[in-house]
Amino acid sequence: MADPRFFERRGPFSLEFLANAVGGELDPGNDGRGLVRDVAPLELAGPEDISFLEDKRRAAGFAETAAGACLIARSAAPPARPGLRLVRVDRPYLAYIRVANLFYPEPVLEPGVDRHAMVDLDARLGAGCRIEAGVVIGPRAELGERCHVGPHAVIGAGCVLGADCRIGAGVTISHAVIGARVRIWPGARIGQPGFGFVPGPRGLERVPQLGRVVIHDDVDIGANTTIDRGAAGDTLIGAGCIIDNLVQIAHNVTLGQGCIIVAQAGISGSTRLDDHVVLGGQAGLSDHLKLGKGARVAAQGGVMRDIEPGGEVGGSPAVPIRQWHRQTLALARLARRKGD
Amino acid sequence: MADPRFFERRGPFSLEFLANAVGGELDPGNDGRGLVRDVAPLELAGPEDISFLEDKRRAAGFAETAAGACLIARSAAPPARPGLRLVRVDRPYLAYIRVANLFYPEPVLEPGVDRHAMVDLDARLGAGCRIEAGVVIGPRAELGERCHVGPHAVIGAGCVLGADCRIGAGVTISHAVIGARVRIWPGARIGQPGFGFVPGPRGLERVPQLGRVVIHDDVDIGANTTIDRGAAGDTLIGAGCIIDNLVQIAHNVTLGQGCIIVAQAGISGSTRLDDHVVLGGQAGLSDHLKLGKGARVAAQGGVMRDIEPGGEVGGSPAVPIRQWHRQTLALARLARRKGD
Amino acid sequence: MADPRFFERRGPFSLEFLANAVGGELDPGNDGRGLVRDVAPLELAGPEDISFLEDKRRAAGFAETAAGACLIARSAAPPARPGLRLVRVDRPYLAYIRVANLFYPEPVLEPGVDRHAMVDLDARLGAGCRIEAGVVIGPRAELGERCHVGPHAVIGAGCVLGADCRIGAGVTISHAVIGARVRIWPGARIGQPGFGFVPGPRGLERVPQLGRVVIHDDVDIGANTTIDRGAAGDTLIGAGCIIDNLVQIAHNVTLGQGCIIVAQAGISGSTRLDDHVVLGGQAGLSDHLKLGKGARVAAQGGVMRDIEPGGEVGGSPAVPIRQWHRQTLALARLARRKGD
Repeated sequence: MADPRFFERRGPFSLEFLANAVGGELDPGNDGRGLVRDVAPLELAGPEDISFLEDKRRAAGFAETAAGACLIARSAAPPARPGLRLVRVDRPYLAYIRVANLFYPEPVLEPGVDRHAMVDLDARLGAGCRIEAGVVIGPRAELGERCHVGPHAVIGAGCVLGADCRIGAGVTISHAVIGARVRIWPGARIGQPGFGFVPGPRGLERVPQLGRVVIHDDVDIGANTTIDRGAAGDTLIGAGCIIDNLVQIAHNVTLGQGCIIVAQAGISGSTRLDDHVVLGGQAGLSDHLKLGKGARVAAQGGVMRDIEPGGEVGGSPAVPIRQWHRQTLALARLARRKGD
Repeated sequence: MADPRFFERRGPFSLEFLANAVGGELDPGNDGRGLVRDVAPLELAGPEDISFLEDKRRAAGFAETAAGACLIARSAAPPARPGLRLVRVDRPYLAYIRVANLFYPEPVLEPGVDRHAMVDLDARLGAGCRIEAGVVIGPRAELGERCHVGPHAVIGAGCVLGADCRIGAGVTISHAVIGARVRIWPGARIGQPGFGFVPGPRGLERVPQLGRVVIHDDVDIGANTTIDRGAAGDTLIGAGCIIDNLVQIAHNVTLGQGCIIVAQAGISGSTRLDDHVVLGGQAGLSDHLKLGKGARVAAQGGVMRDIEPGGEVGGSPAVPIRQWHRQTLALARLARRKGD
Repeated sequence: MADPRFFERRGPFSLEFLANAVGGELDPGNDGRGLVRDVAPLELAGPEDISFLEDKRRAAGFAETAAGACLIARSAAPPARPGLRLVRVDRPYLAYIRVANLFYPEPVLEPGVDRHAMVDLDARLGAGCRIEAGVVIGPRAELGERCHVGPHAVIGAGCVLGADCRIGAGVTISHAVIGARVRIWPGARIGQPGFGFVPGPRGLERVPQLGRVVIHDDVDIGANTTIDRGAAGDTLIGAGCIIDNLVQIAHNVTLGQGCIIVAQAGISGSTRLDDHVVLGGQAGLSDHLKLGKGARVAAQGGVMRDIEPGGEVGGSPAVPIRQWHRQTLALARLARRKGD
């Protein structure tokens, strides 16, 4: 499936090997010795591929798939093509991810510093790092083991990165302390000064931005996303947060653990998200808000007030999600009645 | 008109030469031997410039223009300043573009690879390419003839570009197959993994993103726009699409031919646009939608359902455009009645 | 307070010295000889820090602060901890900025051109410039005195920058004339062609973009923001404008002086903002509009009509702000009545 110009495929693997690797069980009568050569979703899979069924709404695709094997929930029994070999697992999609990672493991890093990289003599690189061409690493920066820094990324003076970080091409990082296994995709901007100005006698005066960006472990930051450093105190990104492309995170924002921020969302200064908050695409949050644990904002929602833990809002200005749906319906009805 | 520090002007050309070049006709009594030195819109044009009138609403500007010559529709007869030399054409704006391209042709590419570029020995460059300083081209990448790659652009392993592409400064491309005459402006990000995660026992787990970005001929991609590669299968951009700045295109999105995506619009995963769809600025589309041929979404529209061919929607959540206008009016009326 | 890995702190200073530096007055009984070692906001300050109270709503934080000294309005008399040394000033926040700038002055530029920079022989650099690694400066570009150009920034042929500009890492600039003391943060894109196309017989044809970007003095442009050059005539950014991250400014837009454009806002082609206009985050403006002096657009506002001087609008489509609030309330009421 995957284009060999871009992805190197391992395998083939026997079905039994794959089933064991994900703690799965072969259906009776399936001896598991047949070889599997690739992964593919139901609609693209062929007889040498393994696929998965997680969502019952995909049952039609399952019935018609040409896949040779399929990961499926232990209790599921949708109509299947005769001969389709089933592997029973607890969570088919997670199992599929693991199988896919067997066929397509992360490319092994070849350690080394490209001769076109510019690493300050006072910077410290952990063992096994790979530093690509054009990278600039400033004085006193510290990178953990096995970091990969893509071409032309710039890591400013004093920045700290934990082990196994992946920094994309053209990323810029300054005034930042970053944990382990953080991935930052191309063009993201981390640590520039926040947008703080005060009207003065000669126009707007810059408020010195004396804080940092602190990013905990296992965070994923999308392409061309911007995260400004704090004014006083830090901008904080909690462990395991995933942040999509073109997101704006202003100074002194705090994200708890495991937040999900979809593309083009924006968070204004000093707003705090508790753990596991989800912002839909293009959602916007005012400054100095608090969003409780597990709060959710629908796409394009414009949040101007705090949200309780577990609260779900939509609309602009955002209201509780059920109220938003009622408003939407009420407005449609009103327009019908009054319309020409 | 154009600042000579940035644009090199050719000419002057006789009016007759220009009229012939665009298939135009001089009005009787105009011998066409007078020289034209530049192009300019009606309000900026002087006696040595040629301008154009396409839109009847510009008739006032036409009546007052100081232009020496003007491209105008064959049948148009708005009041004109005596002495203004008219050139009759089918489509004045298109003719103006062609005349402008005579005065200001694309700068000729001086082929060559800058000594500060880093081109892998296993990459293939077509004849006549120009590769600027700091460019990084990975192994097995293939560029067609006469491509121009701007400073510090990064083209990853295995990527393919057709002939006559223009890649702006600082662009990053990976996992992509790109057609001919594609233009990508500075800072665009093509081919990073899509935003796919599944909750697992130890937090969110990344779904391997094993697809590509496939871009057909004559596409234009704006500055700092992001186009993620597919999860399984490809993200597809049809021939002749034009995509403005800061647009987000998620994994497995499909754009038909000739779509127009205005700045800061966002398209969620697996959504399909048929040919000639138009998205206004800051419009957002949910995932897995289908937008029919020629569908149009107003600026800031938030689309959560499929759109029929030719359908036009606005608002968030988006509704048919006439309904949106009615809703807007009904709401204004309601607020007036109920307001304090 | 500030992390010494990123910020070099001066001082300590006597309170008297600081009071004099900002034209402040010590409260009676305060001899001013005590040393101050740092600045900090009320909630973070300790006994050797100076803080400030500007906003009466922060009075509780003021009462509880552990700060050793505090800048405060001349007439203010909120309850204070005994022993807190007060410095009376006209504008406490502005005074705080000045004090912070004494502790943390802009790092001194070390003039020089990095040996990995690529400066065209026909470019002119003013005295005292610092040009970092990987910078590309094209022919005939002119930089004023003491400009700082960060790693991998690209300044195109013929561009002009005034004195004391700060250009961030990875910025690209072309077709631009820029004043003094302009700051452009990482990844901003200045001067690429505007989004102008006309349907032609073979698809969309590009309208030549023959204008420039003209940026006046003291402008601040955020990370990954995009400003396109004019089609004919220029895109103009007035003196003292501040523009946040990920903003889109289309061709031929005009910004007056001192405009404030918050993150992810977008301005369509040829729209004109008079002086001191404020756009909230994610606001969007249609093309060819006029926004009068001091007009304000709420966050996510979608403006489709001109705004009078001093006018304030919100909503999408945007309406006068009080009407927007009334609509919001009326809609909530309607949904309550009709809701299930």
